[in-house]
Amino acid sequence: MKNQNQTELSELLERALARALDGEDASHDVFHARRVKLNTQAIANLEGDGNLHILTAAAYLHDLVNLPKNAPNRAQASRLSANAAEPILKQLDFNAVDIKAVQHCIEAHSFSAGISPETIDAKILQDADRLESLGALGIARTFYIAAKMNSELFHGEDPFAINRELDDKRYAVDHFKVKLLTLADTMQTDAGKTIALQRTTSMRSFLDALADEIGATQLW
Amino acid sequence: MKNQNQTELSELLERALARALDGEDASHDVFHARRVKLNTQAIANLEGDGNLHILTAAAYLHDLVNLPKNAPNRAQASRLSANAAEPILKQLDFNAVDIKAVQHCIEAHSFSAGISPETIDAKILQDADRLESLGALGIARTFYIAAKMNSELFHGEDPFAINRELDDKRYAVDHFKVKLLTLADTMQTDAGKTIALQRTTSMRSFLDALADEIGATQLW
Repeated sequence: MKNQNQTELSELLERALARALDGEDASHDVFHARRVKLNTQAIANLEGDGNLHILTAAAYLHDLVNLPKNAPNRAQASRLSANAAEPILKQLDFNAVDIKAVQHCIEAHSFSAGISPETIDAKILQDADRLESLGALGIARTFYIAAKMNSELFHGEDPFAINRELDDKRYAVDHFKVKLLTLADTMQTDAGKTIALQRTTSMRSFLDALADEIGATQLW
Repeated sequence: MKNQNQTELSELLERALARALDGEDASHDVFHARRVKLNTQAIANLEGDGNLHILTAAAYLHDLVNLPKNAPNRAQASRLSANAAEPILKQLDFNAVDIKAVQHCIEAHSFSAGISPETIDAKILQDADRLESLGALGIARTFYIAAKMNSELFHGEDPFAINRELDDKRYAVDHFKVKLLTLADTMQTDAGKTIALQRTTSMRSFLDALADEIGATQLW
């Protein structure tokens, strides 16, 4: 496994991921993994740092074990994914040191695991995954997931919570202020933060346009 | 009923609408009606034409009878709404001529009724209602409704349908090209078209940002 085999490595990892997953969500997870890989490359390029070999493996395998949002052991998902990655990486001839490096990236990528990313690759993977929540994709996912959770689009009288508590379980638009608009502050790398801030700006523009369209007041 | 009583008229109409509707969707429908009223005012101001008295009544009562998307008689909904508006308008002391004018606006507002809007007020109402599908609100609603209909966010391999047929029953992003990006062409008034084109531009920017984020090609 060398860096010059990135394309081949990606294909092998995609196939391994698709085999490990089953059911109709498999293709979503493969596309998500592919986008996270692109994000890791963009961040690594901007940072001038990171090991693409490690990052590609970590990106494809970071959600190998996916537990439902309400599963009691959901905080364990990233550790379980790291464990499940080991035999796949062995089969792809990753050496023991690289396997540990990939596993650390996977273990540390999610907030809920409570493991802080110690290596530049782990930091890049966490940022790359978090970028998926932001920007145009973040907007699309927020409203899509809100409908799945039976939330409403926004509070009719006070869409931007000027005179009420935020409640993103109930109103999709509240999720921007509860979580998405400050997510850039949690980025681990300068490059990740730069991209996150660009996407935050586009989410703010979206909310300003929405406020204008629905005749609501928006305070920042 | 005079134009100087717009605020009072709006309150009376809101109460009449809320009474006529029942169930949990009532508040959504009242807020939608209120936004359509704002749109009618914006269009009428830009056009320098239209009767605010008629428009306010038509905006509040245009969806008085709301049938499910798959109801066999859905094409009748706007005619049923026009009929149901009559007793409410009589109670609010609208005269017979104005009642007919409001009813024509309501009847002609939806595509599916197949009735063309003959008056400036009917044209304004149709445009005002159609604006709700566009811009930031259109983006939010598209992804929200897609989730409710069990569609996916977008096609994983070819999100913008460069090499496949569009299918907006299956992919939310396809709905922009199937319907929303050309809706401005159907506007009846110059002012409605101007606002619709602004909102179309913001939808295109959103799709460009999405393409960029997910590493996809977007052709216009």
